Amino acid sequence: MPWTATVRSASAGRAANAWVVGADVGATKIVAGLVDPRGRIRSRDRREVPPSRAPGAVTDRIAECIAACRASARSTPVVIGVGIAGQIDSVRGVVRYAPNLRWKNFALGPRLREASRLPVYLANDVRAIAVGEWHFGAGRGLRDLLCISVGTGVGGGVVVDGHLLEGATNSTGEIGHTMLVAGGRKCTCPHRGCLEAYVGGWAIEERARARARRSPASAKRLIREAGAVTRITPRALERAARAGDPFSRALVEEFASEFAAGVVGLVNAFNPRRVIVGGTVAEGFPEYLHRARVAVREGCQPAAALAQVVPSRLGPDAGILGAAWLARSSLAPRTALSQRG
Amino acid sequence: MPWTATVRSASAGRAANAWVVGADVGATKIVAGLVDPRGRIRSRDRREVPPSRAPGAVTDRIAECIAACRASARSTPVVIGVGIAGQIDSVRGVVRYAPNLRWKNFALGPRLREASRLPVYLANDVRAIAVGEWHFGAGRGLRDLLCISVGTGVGGGVVVDGHLLEGATNSTGEIGHTMLVAGGRKCTCPHRGCLEAYVGGWAIEERARARARRSPASAKRLIREAGAVTRITPRALERAARAGDPFSRALVEEFASEFAAGVVGLVNAFNPRRVIVGGTVAEGFPEYLHRARVAVREGCQPAAALAQVVPSRLGPDAGILGAAWLARSSLAPRTALSQRG
Repeated sequence: MPWTATVRSASAGRAANAWVVGADVGATKIVAGLVDPRGRIRSRDRREVPPSRAPGAVTDRIAECIAACRASARSTPVVIGVGIAGQIDSVRGVVRYAPNLRWKNFALGPRLREASRLPVYLANDVRAIAVGEWHFGAGRGLRDLLCISVGTGVGGGVVVDGHLLEGATNSTGEIGHTMLVAGGRKCTCPHRGCLEAYVGGWAIEERARARARRSPASAKRLIREAGAVTRITPRALERAARAGDPFSRALVEEFASEFAAGVVGLVNAFNPRRVIVGGTVAEGFPEYLHRARVAVREGCQPAAALAQVVPSRLGPDAGILGAAWLARSSLAPRTALSQRG
Repeated sequence: MPWTATVRSASAGRAANAWVVGADVGATKIVAGLVDPRGRIRSRDRREVPPSRAPGAVTDRIAECIAACRASARSTPVVIGVGIAGQIDSVRGVVRYAPNLRWKNFALGPRLREASRLPVYLANDVRAIAVGEWHFGAGRGLRDLLCISVGTGVGGGVVVDGHLLEGATNSTGEIGHTMLVAGGRKCTCPHRGCLEAYVGGWAIEERARARARRSPASAKRLIREAGAVTRITPRALERAARAGDPFSRALVEEFASEFAAGVVGLVNAFNPRRVIVGGTVAEGFPEYLHRARVAVREGCQPAAALAQVVPSRLGPDAGILGAAWLARSSLAPRTALSQRG
């Protein structure tokens, strides 16, 4: 019996009035919330990912985070949804590959179910975010959305014709690994020149450090802000740019215009009505959004150029609400994932 | 009443046993075929596009082509499907934008219906090709396909989760205008660095001529093959490469590896089970397919790397069969476009 069959038979019929826990597991932090049947988060918890990132220790920490949400609200959830960065086998509850956590083929779903005594539904984190924004945030009522999250990496979730795309092996929307500069910078994936390898958090950290090393005099303020060249982070770059440092501002504009070029190509490919941009790096650098908005209007094909580029409305809540929504839908027939007319 | 409502009410209920004409209108030629209810082409016709490419003259030529198909078979079609390169408003039967024909907002559907006295369904040419391969060719039985056509331009048709993607303005799959080299070569679209601007027919013609101009000695065989630098075409390049000319072979390998890099990004983004590569340029340069196959296996993310890269099985028939299938489906409820399980 496939793993979700248990989930469904155990909980079928309880979906409509269900309280659900949604959680978003990143490389450094875990957030969770208890979500009521109307999609409001009624209690929250947030914890650090253990520095070892060992699967067992992280699972325990997720379970603690979920338990804390449950303890602080009176209603009992019927299912847990977890969004996690990586390639997810939702049917078996397995994290196939999570480069940021350095996990391969870890059965997080069954492990977490044991710990929490509730069915668990796993999803890719950005797909969960896309669902959250689609049903509760910046994408409400639309049938065609591209949700882009720029944090340590770059991920995406795509809704086309009222359907959340899954694909042959459940990884449609891995837009961080579309091409930006063929033959260019080495990525963490097996390829070169990916969008993520230019504009994601890890990439801009590497690139800003390399530039500062090459021009220490021009980078003086950035280096001072960070403490040392080797301690330059996206956050330090953000602070220095906001303080008006020309070196840092030029870097941010460069990264933002590369991001915008990538977004033009993605909008041509997916033809969304709206592009929702979120994630810690994009939030830190509003230039990402601004440049993308102009580039889409001026650079896309006529039909695609109508796409609006907007910021995430829900921020970190998008992942919680989306994971909760997906988990609730897993209790009902699979068509609940569509809004096809 | 929207334009297709007429089509539907005029022909509803006749879909199952319908004979249908399918046509594929390119920048230089028109092919059409009369398709029986089992999806076999029972008569064909092929004509040149008038050199003026004037909408009226081309419409007349398409109508002649369709009339010739109808004359040479005994059964009467109930609807006509036409695939045409560009952005199509299928609901109104309007070609919004067809750069290769230099058309803007031309109501081909209604005009052709007048001429042929049958309902007409318009679709993007590569989307029609994708449908043809999906239902009758290299994609039969699959739910996740990426169909790439490399001719004068680069186009795509995408099936995800058993659904042919349309998007907010009916242009999902315009993969020729995804990024290959941010800030790179000027494209025919408003942007720079698009995949098409590197590996499409018009681009490789420009690039081969420029290279030959720069190194006339090394390009001697290619120039002789073409007759003159200004007459170098993809076909001439193909012949010279096949004849073993090292200059031409190196160019072809370069273009093919750029194509392959683009395909890796697209496979990561769309997560197809199979990638179907067709079009005159891809057929002329088998290196495109071979390089893409290796690049997907070695360069894609683990989950996406399982995609098979195969040649088109139907060649020019894909467009005829796909346009016919879409036209037939337009007589039935719209859900016929899905195979969602």
